[in-house]
Amino acid sequence: MEQNKIQPLLNYIKNYISLTKEEEQFLNSKVTYRKYLKGQYIIQQGDVCKYECFVVKGCTKMFHVNEEGQEHILMFSIEDWWTSDMGSFITQTPADFSVMCLEPTELVMFSHDIIEELYEKIPKLERFFRQIIEKAFVASQKRIVRNFSLSAKERYLYFKNQYPKIEQRIPQYMVASYLGITKEFLSKIKKQLLVDE
Amino acid sequence: MEQNKIQPLLNYIKNYISLTKEEEQFLNSKVTYRKYLKGQYIIQQGDVCKYECFVVKGCTKMFHVNEEGQEHILMFSIEDWWTSDMGSFITQTPADFSVMCLEPTELVMFSHDIIEELYEKIPKLERFFRQIIEKAFVASQKRIVRNFSLSAKERYLYFKNQYPKIEQRIPQYMVASYLGITKEFLSKIKKQLLVDE
Repeated sequence: MEQNKIQPLLNYIKNYISLTKEEEQFLNSKVTYRKYLKGQYIIQQGDVCKYECFVVKGCTKMFHVNEEGQEHILMFSIEDWWTSDMGSFITQTPADFSVMCLEPTELVMFSHDIIEELYEKIPKLERFFRQIIEKAFVASQKRIVRNFSLSAKERYLYFKNQYPKIEQRIPQYMVASYLGITKEFLSKIKKQLLVDE
Repeated sequence: MEQNKIQPLLNYIKNYISLTKEEEQFLNSKVTYRKYLKGQYIIQQGDVCKYECFVVKGCTKMFHVNEEGQEHILMFSIEDWWTSDMGSFITQTPADFSVMCLEPTELVMFSHDIIEELYEKIPKLERFFRQIIEKAFVASQKRIVRNFSLSAKERYLYFKNQYPKIEQRIPQYMVASYLGITKEFLSKIKKQLLVDE
């Protein structure tokens, strides 16, 4: 693969660890670069998740559909973020979540088959993944508390401030699903905020 | 320190990686063993969290108090679990959470100052911590979805089934706080479940 395709990933990794040219080339020889169309699935709930994915370009949603058919969005991923069903990936059991592309999306994919080989050849990657998962875990814990302790309006304002680039790229009903409220309620909150200004 | 004090931690680590006798001794020489009384704080919201803690004995709650003074419990930890404010620990900024002992509690504590030295001397520990944080992250993501998609009754039943040992050790109002409901509502749910039986 042309190395420049995975350059955004290499730049991202540089924030955590330093790789030699040889290590970058080895990594490049092992990962998969893949383009998806808007509407395509990277993972489907019920399948075993085979990849950890770094988003080079595009936007995805990760969601769960419950037995009543209701969809709940857990997260969006854009450039320089990750997406996967990690529970399924680490245990190689059926996924609880789907990941779908909301835009044409380009990914660098780490397959379950090669990740152990990568850790063995480049032990620093163990540190890299530990650090990014620590951050993801912290964000996830804080979100649980926000969901308990903040009002829907406060949660919307937090989302808007924290992820301004995402809100412009996705339909409002998906923002509502991420916040755990109906789209009618989100619309009411936004009208109220206009009056407050 | 007598090595048998940290034996529960060494047994736990064996589920993930193999340490040599020398590595176990090095680890033992670096960690801190500490007893806390019931009601004492391991971390206080607003302080910088200096330790990752493995629970050898006892029970703790991790919670956030919001600006209105309301307490929200994020998690309980008992034997063979971990507790910390990881966001504060990794960034060394003030903690968003407190951790308090609900019983007399004994911990093996990894201080921020020694953890880098441990990773350097025993690189396998990097893998160990990566794997336990992956599991914690997955549990946390699934909890976000349950909080959205399950009713309070279903969430209570999940908690009861998943953590039967914890429910017997803590007051009901804390279970309610963990579930994000009032203690009156939890009491109503439990009465309803008795009728259903």
